[in-house]
Parts: sequence; structure tokens; C-alpha cells
Amino acid sequence: MSLLVVGSLGLDTVVTPFDRVENALGGSAVYISLAASYFSGPVYLVGVVGDDFPKEYTKMLENHNVDLEGLQVVEGGKTFRWSGKYHYDLNVRDTLFTELNVFESFDPVIPERFRKSRFVCLGNIDPVLQIKVLDQMTDPQFVVCDTMNYWIEGKRDELLKLLKRVNVLIINDSEARLLANEPNLIKAAKQIRELGPEFLIIKKGEHGALLFAEDTIFSAPAYPLEMIYDPTGAGDTFAGGFVGYLHKTRDLSSENMKKAVVYGSALASFCVEKFSTKGLEELNYLRVHDRYREFFNLSKFDE
Amino acid sequence: MSLLVVGSLGLDTVVTPFDRVENALGGSAVYISLAASYFSGPVYLVGVVGDDFPKEYTKMLENHNVDLEGLQVVEGGKTFRWSGKYHYDLNVRDTLFTELNVFESFDPVIPERFRKSRFVCLGNIDPVLQIKVLDQMTDPQFVVCDTMNYWIEGKRDELLKLLKRVNVLIINDSEARLLANEPNLIKAAKQIRELGPEFLIIKKGEHGALLFAEDTIFSAPAYPLEMIYDPTGAGDTFAGGFVGYLHKTRDLSSENMKKAVVYGSALASFCVEKFSTKGLEELNYLRVHDRYREFFNLSKFDE
Repeated sequence: MSLLVVGSLGLDTVVTPFDRVENALGGSAVYISLAASYFSGPVYLVGVVGDDFPKEYTKMLENHNVDLEGLQVVEGGKTFRWSGKYHYDLNVRDTLFTELNVFESFDPVIPERFRKSRFVCLGNIDPVLQIKVLDQMTDPQFVVCDTMNYWIEGKRDELLKLLKRVNVLIINDSEARLLANEPNLIKAAKQIRELGPEFLIIKKGEHGALLFAEDTIFSAPAYPLEMIYDPTGAGDTFAGGFVGYLHKTRDLSSENMKKAVVYGSALASFCVEKFSTKGLEELNYLRVHDRYREFFNLSKFDE
Repeated sequence: MSLLVVGSLGLDTVVTPFDRVENALGGSAVYISLAASYFSGPVYLVGVVGDDFPKEYTKMLENHNVDLEGLQVVEGGKTFRWSGKYHYDLNVRDTLFTELNVFESFDPVIPERFRKSRFVCLGNIDPVLQIKVLDQMTDPQFVVCDTMNYWIEGKRDELLKLLKRVNVLIINDSEARLLANEPNLIKAAKQIRELGPEFLIIKKGEHGALLFAEDTIFSAPAYPLEMIYDPTGAGDTFAGGFVGYLHKTRDLSSENMKKAVVYGSALASFCVEKFSTKGLEELNYLRVHDRYREFFNLSKFDE
């Protein structure tokens, strides 16, 4: 039973009030795979890059037990590039440029060997492509999906079709409000779950995350970080940690889902402590578990 | 050992997307006292109204074991009036008008009988007046204080003087950032605690609250309300529930302080379910405790 991750791989140029990096490793599939790799491997990655994609990045991913058979490398093509600038309070960012490059004509082809994966994590890409991925899978049992405002507004019908085939939707609070057209998050969550996903996770950045299930609502705290170096990839990392933990434990109960939300939050807290993927490259399960315990202590109170 | 509450009493005209009320009971001292009354009484209230203040409001407060010996009634004077309009998402409000009236020349005089109170809750009023209150107390052991942007910007020096005499400061996230001039809440909290308060509580509205103490940070969830009728007074109610629970239990440990934060949050969740003080008028300890348990279940996960 394996885990398939589909999404973007990119070269990010990120400017924060503290520093600036150019052509650093980025992309949803990268963050998801790295985060999931701390729970169980291999992680099957499907995506596309140009032949300018640095070999060191490929190597680093392989060292984390990420299987790259599904990574298309376009000869003579340029890798997807994105640049963003974060403001002083790090909650606001401007996109400086987006170059789709090889990503523009990305057609996800799932290698035969990957098609039997029971766990699928669809990173934030065009819902048309996300559906294409599911169509190639033999028997996907547990599908986790991310999306964004751009698709909610621009490809609503396709997204709604997709949502009927998704077990867990992970979005942020503004996306939830937009998708349901409802300012109250609790009402919005109810409406979104009626669109298909049995579970809904609403990420609230520095305010933690909410998990909505049939029988329960769970509020997970955010880790009290004094220094956030680079918020890029935090949401993808959350999704990767979440699905990675579930993939490892094979327990899809609401109670275990809560633990998965906290593991996702723990991974995301490591992610933002360094630039690009650096915060995710040198972890180990013990450190992840220690941070999980810190989350536990942060929100624990007597009954 | 009793609890003294000082703050405003007012007549509020509130407009929300759902309804509108005129001259409803409001004011920080009112919300704080009502919330605290569910834990232990009597609550000693000090404030000022005009002789237009409806007798039914006085009666309701007295029925909740609020001792009004310290309530100055100005003959021929008009009670403080405030009007606000909430937007569709209820997180944004415009002040339509503020008439200070008798509140403009409020000079808090603490009745002899009240001066020995060990617990003091200073509602959001001019820090000069808050200091005046403390100066009249015989031996205040535990001082809880609220403030707002207006005083942080306009009376900073007086506020800083006050903070040295305060055990718990309760403010919201934007106020914390403004007071510390620091966008990161965790850093801001550290800096604010160095100004005097041993404990700091940062309210985050629909995102819950954070408690900062010497040895711990505690993240309390917000209650997942599908319908918020009127957010007015939620912060004051939080403070009242918090200090009321501590006053009842006489346990100022960090662990009990966490429980107090959740009791404050529970009271605030009742407050916003109805207009004005209506959500606080018909409670009982059992209902409050049931909601406390809902908060417990909302944030509980396995270690």
C-alpha cells in the first residue's frame, strides 16, 4: 500500500524581510513528499521539470526515499519558476512573477507501478489534471486534495466534480469562505463537506487548523514560533505530514485523523523555520515526535 | 476575599446583518460582572450612569448578585451611549457614534467596603482612572486589566505605569502588536510580559486565545459557533469569566489559569449567541460547565 503525490516542482525566488534566495527548491509535490517521507517511504512522486532542474535537488529527494520514476524531465525545457515577496508581518505576500514553463503543458502520466497506490495526495494544480490522475488509479482508497482561490473561481465545475472523489480536502480559511460563499467558517465547512469530502481541514496559518468530520470538530493549535523565516510551502508540508502519518498508521478514524493534523502542523512548523525546503531536509522521526509533544502540551488543559 | 470590577456602563445601539437593537444594556463593567457572577458573588461594581439608566437593568444586575453600592448615578446626567455596526463577516465593525455623557467626567470612587477586595478587574477605561482605582485599594492581590488601541497610542506612559501593577493583561492580537511594536505575537508577548504583567492573555476572536506565563504558553480554541448574533462585549465577558473562575477557585497556578482561560472563552461564546447581555442573563453553572467540556473535547487529542 503506497502513497502517490502529484503536484508542482519549481525553482523559487523568495524575498523576506530577513533574506533572499534565488532558484531554491520549491513546488507542492516537493514539500508534500519531503514531509510524508518522515513517516513511511517510498513516496511516489509525479510531476514535471525542465532539464535545467539541478541534479542536487533530484538527489536530495531520492535520499529521502522519494521515488522519481514519475518525474517527467522535458529536454530543452525550463522548470516552473515562481517568485514571491513577504511583507514585514509575513502573513501578506506578493507574487513577483510566475513562469509556468514546462508546467504549462503538464500532463500527469502515472507509471504502471504507481497506479495501485491506495493513498493519493493531490497537490494544488488544475482540478482537470487532478481528475486525470484519479482516472489512472486502479483503486484509490484515500484521496487528499489541496486547491486554491484561482481554481475555485476559474474552474469551479471541474473542482466540484473532483470533490466527489476526494476523502479529505485541505484548504485555508479564505478559500473555504470562497468555496462555500459563506463568511462563517463552521457553516462553510458543513456546506463543503456536503460537496463530497468526508473530512475537511481548514488551515488558518498562525492560528492553527480545524478538522471537520461527521461526528467531530477538532481545533489544532499553531506552534508559537518567534521567528518565521519563510512561510513558503507550509501548507503543502502540512498536507504531506498529515497524509504521511495516516499512510504509516493505516488508521482513518477521526481520533487518528486528529493526530495526523497535529503531525502535519508539526512538520509545517519545521518548514517555516528555514528557507525553502531546508527545514525539512535534516529531520528525523524523533524530532518530529518531540514537536508533536510540544503541540500536545501547548493545548492541554484539565477536564 | 471579594472581586471588584470597574469599567463602563452604557446604552448600546447595535446593528448587525441580522437585526438591530437600541439602547440595550452594555459597557465593560456590565459584561465583566455578569460573566463573573456565574462563579461567585457578590461582584462589587464601580461605574457611573445618568438618571436615564433604566431601572430594569439595575434590577437585572442586582439579581445576578452584583453589588451596586459603587454605582454613581448622576442626577440629570445622560448615560454613556455607543453605537456600532457589524459587517457581514462580523469581524469588522464601524463605530457609528460615541456619546461619553456622564462617563466624560467619571471619577471612580471605591466605597470603603469594596477597598479590601483582593481581586480587581479593571475594564477598558482610561489608564489614569485605572491607576486611581488601584491607589484606593488596601491590598489588591490579583489585578486583571484590559485596555485598547486608543489608550496604547494616546496614553502610553500612563499605561506603562499601570502595567507594573497588573498581574494579568488581557488584550487582543492587534493591541499586542501595537503595544510591543512587533508583528510576531510570540515575541510581542515576551516583550509585554517584561513591562510588568506576570500573565498575558491575547484574545484572537474566532481563533481563540493565547495565555503566556513564565513557564508555559497555552493555546485555547474558539467555540465553533455557526451563528454569531452580536460580538459586542465578548472580550469583556471573557475577562469576567476568567477572573470569576479564579476568584472562585483561589488557585493562581498556571494550570488553573489555563482552565480560567477556557471558562472565559465559554462565557464569551454564550455572550455572542444573543444580542446585548441576553446571552449572559439566563445561564447557570451547569450550562457553563457543559460548554467547558465541549471546549475540552474540541481540542483534545491523544498524546
